[in-house]
Amino acid sequence: MARSTRQILDMNAFRADDAEAKARETVKRRLANTGALSVLFYREPIEMVSAEGAWMQAANGERYLDFYNNVPSVGHTHPKVVEAVTRQMGRLNIHSRYLNQVVDNYLERLKERLPDPLSNIVLTCTGSEANDLALRVAEAVTGARGVIVTETAYHGNTAAVTAISPSAFKQASPPAHVVAIPAPAPTRFEEDIAGGFAASVEEAIATLKGRGYGLSAFICDSIFSSDGVFADPAGFLRPAVEAARAAGGVYIADEVQPGFARTGDAFWGFARHGVEPDMVTMGKPMGNGFPMAGVAAKPEDLSRFSAAVGYFNTFGGNPVAAAAGAAVLSVIEEERLQENARDVGSHLLSRLHDLAARDARVGTPRGAGLFIGLDLIEEGDAHRPDPELASRLINGLKREHVLIGAAGPYGHTLKIRPPLCLNRSEADLFADTLERVLSEG
Amino acid sequence: MARSTRQILDMNAFRADDAEAKARETVKRRLANTGALSVLFYREPIEMVSAEGAWMQAANGERYLDFYNNVPSVGHTHPKVVEAVTRQMGRLNIHSRYLNQVVDNYLERLKERLPDPLSNIVLTCTGSEANDLALRVAEAVTGARGVIVTETAYHGNTAAVTAISPSAFKQASPPAHVVAIPAPAPTRFEEDIAGGFAASVEEAIATLKGRGYGLSAFICDSIFSSDGVFADPAGFLRPAVEAARAAGGVYIADEVQPGFARTGDAFWGFARHGVEPDMVTMGKPMGNGFPMAGVAAKPEDLSRFSAAVGYFNTFGGNPVAAAAGAAVLSVIEEERLQENARDVGSHLLSRLHDLAARDARVGTPRGAGLFIGLDLIEEGDAHRPDPELASRLINGLKREHVLIGAAGPYGHTLKIRPPLCLNRSEADLFADTLERVLSEG
Repeated sequence: MARSTRQILDMNAFRADDAEAKARETVKRRLANTGALSVLFYREPIEMVSAEGAWMQAANGERYLDFYNNVPSVGHTHPKVVEAVTRQMGRLNIHSRYLNQVVDNYLERLKERLPDPLSNIVLTCTGSEANDLALRVAEAVTGARGVIVTETAYHGNTAAVTAISPSAFKQASPPAHVVAIPAPAPTRFEEDIAGGFAASVEEAIATLKGRGYGLSAFICDSIFSSDGVFADPAGFLRPAVEAARAAGGVYIADEVQPGFARTGDAFWGFARHGVEPDMVTMGKPMGNGFPMAGVAAKPEDLSRFSAAVGYFNTFGGNPVAAAAGAAVLSVIEEERLQENARDVGSHLLSRLHDLAARDARVGTPRGAGLFIGLDLIEEGDAHRPDPELASRLINGLKREHVLIGAAGPYGHTLKIRPPLCLNRSEADLFADTLERVLSEG
Repeated sequence: MARSTRQILDMNAFRADDAEAKARETVKRRLANTGALSVLFYREPIEMVSAEGAWMQAANGERYLDFYNNVPSVGHTHPKVVEAVTRQMGRLNIHSRYLNQVVDNYLERLKERLPDPLSNIVLTCTGSEANDLALRVAEAVTGARGVIVTETAYHGNTAAVTAISPSAFKQASPPAHVVAIPAPAPTRFEEDIAGGFAASVEEAIATLKGRGYGLSAFICDSIFSSDGVFADPAGFLRPAVEAARAAGGVYIADEVQPGFARTGDAFWGFARHGVEPDMVTMGKPMGNGFPMAGVAAKPEDLSRFSAAVGYFNTFGGNPVAAAAGAAVLSVIEEERLQENARDVGSHLLSRLHDLAARDARVGTPRGAGLFIGLDLIEEGDAHRPDPELASRLINGLKREHVLIGAAGPYGHTLKIRPPLCLNRSEADLFADTLERVLSEG
């Protein structure tokens, strides 16, 4: 029985019934202010006051190495991004109904990174808004409504996008127009991940046709972040995408997680698999924390969509967001962060392989660049997940000043996702600390 | 036959078939970058480079008085907001899964402004996300799905919220779970606006019950911005809200337009009508251009919603947004912008009354504070809208360096919505310029 991401979060989340933690004044305030939708990490939530690079500073003076957070992707409070936002906020911060060179300069730099056919970009504020729009563009293009997602996928928080995010469900199954397929996990498909995953897509297409919805879109995060991180073998995505296209659907690459150089081998996660998306949605790392996101699409597809309904996003594509986005692109280039993600990621992966070789409770690490999944398992058996060990490790790592979370349907996968500026000694510090915490049980 | 807002925008919008404008390099770039979803004002779009207070500066050196834009509500590039964002961005910019005092301090200041029962706030990034969430909370609370909106309403751009935004439709009618009722216009309900509007709500309830949806929410913008601006008589909203509640529905006050002191008489638009919403959604002016928005709700309602589904908004409630929001509240207080909106708004309204008394083409101005609607009509007959005159005025005002837009189902209402820092001489400049442009035909 798969746990939802919500339950996974609960594994290392604050619980409102924890009397001791609740008694803390700071926690009481937060609960009184945000109520049932409060989402706090850890049973003893941490009060943070500042951050820099890969490090966060708590109110009590403790420093934490951040292996969790992919928003400040080029490093917490990167001065170039702060400077760019400050300069543009003091000059002009306006919607996109006037022309502005800062905005078009940014869009052109971003387009240079994208496959040629995707020459139009709609800037939004959040990845949720980007996916919400992409689903509607797909419907306008295909005339169909069915969507295929992976079984622990997360694509955002609007009504339409929550419906395609099984990991957000606490109860119930996806609505009838959505079919969730197994993630491309070695434990599921053994040697033939590409073939097995494509066969799941074929089956889902048949289901959606049987239900009368047809196929509108196959959407996935190409690093399968909330499913547990699956990167290999490179290229496995291609037959699934081809199957979706053959059935008349479009392929939406949700790059909110893998995009912007994180996977080290390319700027976008989909590039690893040699596929060209019909739409690319992007978010979190795009502005290093400035709220911005977007959809890259084909001009003819946006035209089809816009025939029926108008779309305007007030804050989307404002010049301050464009300035933040441009600074992020510059930092990735100047600091060679894609190369750094590849090199430090590869070093970290080999450290984790060493650990797995020495400890039967640690599965074979998976990933690309600075996005790595590490399963905790029972007695060396990859088919026996150990979420309780994952939970103990997350809390043990917190005691040792390392922040990290879990993923996957059972919550037994450590999601290793530090900022792209991570250096080799910080990677070693993580690996050493993980080994020490593991040795404590 | 009602025009949609999209058509109204077209009245003063750039058109891609305008060969001359399209030939301009800056316009070509924008169209190549954003395609069919480009939304530019004016047939000759303006390239803006900077802005301050109520003024915007174009690339060609021309300065424009901004009577259009309610995002930089306390004034373009207000230094206190820029400073607050700069300081916090250089310190910590993180999601809300850690405790942070900047966030809770802001939430508590905002709550002081809200009715007591609405003691929980969920911060999002956009008003669209806020309304998308509020609709789902309403469904969880009522167990019903039907929504009542006004006929030219705009509540945002997600799939769920576009469905309740008739002004965004280019074709087709609202979906079956949405009923659009006439706006509370004097031309529609004559002397009994309160009774007529409430009767429309009753009728819509009966329709929704007949269709099997029941009533989930009655949602409106209490200044009826895109419907054409309707503020009087104060209190007219109350019987409509009571009717919705009597049928088991909740009342959602969409304060994206009237909120944050714009109407001069109160901090929120709903206060003018002596009603207490079940939820308040807020957006644009909240961060003076920093992308932030939110929903204020009752704790028990959020609990009902959260039983079924998780909700998390990565950028929502980050400390930088909270710093921006706090600076906006401070500026409103320190610069007495609510009083300014009342005083300068009242002066402007009286200037427009004078104009209406002298020119039969100008209807009786309506509004509250710095949100005023002014109809252009034929031969003194409020029932004969003249959208062509409105369009000529908008373009004539642009030539005279005043930026303004239109609203209402026929697009014949000038939407007068300058920043709250507008001073009396700027208000006079607007009134003088409007009179001069009117005199040209």
